[in-house]
Amino acid sequence: MNFSLEMPEFKPGTVWLVGAGPGDPGLLTLYAWYALEHADAVVYDALIGEEIRKLIRGDTLQIHAGKRGGRPSPQQRDISQKLIELAQSGHRVLRLKGGDPFVFARGGEEALALVDAGVSFRIVPGISAGIGGLAYAGIPATHRDIGSVVTFVTGHSGKGQVPENLDWRALAHGSPTLVFYMAMRHIKEITDGLLAAGRPRNEPVALVGRASTPDQQVVMTTLADAAMDSAAVTPPAIVVIGDIVRLRGKLDWLSQLPQTQRLAAGKSQAK
Amino acid sequence: MNFSLEMPEFKPGTVWLVGAGPGDPGLLTLYAWYALEHADAVVYDALIGEEIRKLIRGDTLQIHAGKRGGRPSPQQRDISQKLIELAQSGHRVLRLKGGDPFVFARGGEEALALVDAGVSFRIVPGISAGIGGLAYAGIPATHRDIGSVVTFVTGHSGKGQVPENLDWRALAHGSPTLVFYMAMRHIKEITDGLLAAGRPRNEPVALVGRASTPDQQVVMTTLADAAMDSAAVTPPAIVVIGDIVRLRGKLDWLSQLPQTQRLAAGKSQAK
Repeated sequence: MNFSLEMPEFKPGTVWLVGAGPGDPGLLTLYAWYALEHADAVVYDALIGEEIRKLIRGDTLQIHAGKRGGRPSPQQRDISQKLIELAQSGHRVLRLKGGDPFVFARGGEEALALVDAGVSFRIVPGISAGIGGLAYAGIPATHRDIGSVVTFVTGHSGKGQVPENLDWRALAHGSPTLVFYMAMRHIKEITDGLLAAGRPRNEPVALVGRASTPDQQVVMTTLADAAMDSAAVTPPAIVVIGDIVRLRGKLDWLSQLPQTQRLAAGKSQAK
Repeated sequence: MNFSLEMPEFKPGTVWLVGAGPGDPGLLTLYAWYALEHADAVVYDALIGEEIRKLIRGDTLQIHAGKRGGRPSPQQRDISQKLIELAQSGHRVLRLKGGDPFVFARGGEEALALVDAGVSFRIVPGISAGIGGLAYAGIPATHRDIGSVVTFVTGHSGKGQVPENLDWRALAHGSPTLVFYMAMRHIKEITDGLLAAGRPRNEPVALVGRASTPDQQVVMTTLADAAMDSAAVTPPAIVVIGDIVRLRGKLDWLSQLPQTQRLAAGKSQAK
């Protein structure tokens, strides 16, 4: 397969800030693929799974900028500084983030640091887990019969706490479908907040762990039981709340496919 | 460039329901590209722009299933029926939708129709315009300093009206950032609703038309003036409301690139 597509040049001394999508390498964009082929240095997050890491060329400088094991994770400022240094020393720098770089992923902060340092960059959006990951669980983010609003929330604030300043009542009443990112640690506070604001105890909830990877897990539960059932799911996970979850009953297309037909599989590019 | 990636087979008699992203062909996923190469029939929407249509092979059956000029648009039921017929007669059917098939795009309805007809299918998420299109305007969907919530709303209900049953007060208070799809026709009702619910008149608003295409337009305005200023923008357009819009002042990366480096350009695959 060949691209009949003219791609913008990935120039030395620039950064491409790229979303890798939720996990399935088939969900990489053409830009992401092109960047993987041409980068001299890849700075990647903990959310980048093995199937995608396999696609990094063996002669590429690889820097892991995420949490790993019990070791302290690099500070955001250090990551931005690293991107700047790599670009200023003439590398083609691929900053690879899980999902989309501008959806609860601090891509905006990194981009602002690049602007301040005078480093030229390109933003390459990716498939966000709260949309594409849900789709792999057979749950649409929206459906006409369910309503005309969907709300995305991160369960992880700057200090790793449940975000303060959330207006639970407005959240509960504004949107029939609520999608929480990085919410497993605080799922009790989140579900309690929504129950106190009037969402029903038996409202359907899906916990979707490691969406669109070979280890995808989907736990179907309710708002009352979600916190208790969350122990069964390995992060990273998406929590989706609302009647839309019921659609999985008919739309779980992934489980209908033969095992070998489910996901694209990356082959090592080691050279 | 070659895929070092094993793709699931696109089998005759099946449908791939694929999001094409906001417009830039570089934002197609590898699955979308693969499906364009292998499909026998492509059923596409009005939102699929010329740059992506160019990538359809010349020997592929092409069916336009969107509104065009003043002609009546096909009914949703007819589109679903067409997909079923094409699959049942042995085609590899690519249903290509703008953005993501499950974000205000009726992909769920089409998938349910395929389930009921016993047609096997695959969902391929795409980059949604409310995330990726905004990124091309230099506006992140989320930013840590702005808050931990983003809400997506369609301005287009089943009957083409402003969605009824919207709780304007909850919408206005629940989310610092509001992103409206297909909202240009009802922008007056939408901005009036938010103003009445207490959002400030001088709150920044961006109207992003034909995002990530060569004709991208971005109009910066305020909640009070957005309806008046909307005449300057050609649909399809995204309306984004909130302080996040200010980030474009620094993050408008696309305009900083030389014209030829901005977007990928599709070459015709006519054979």
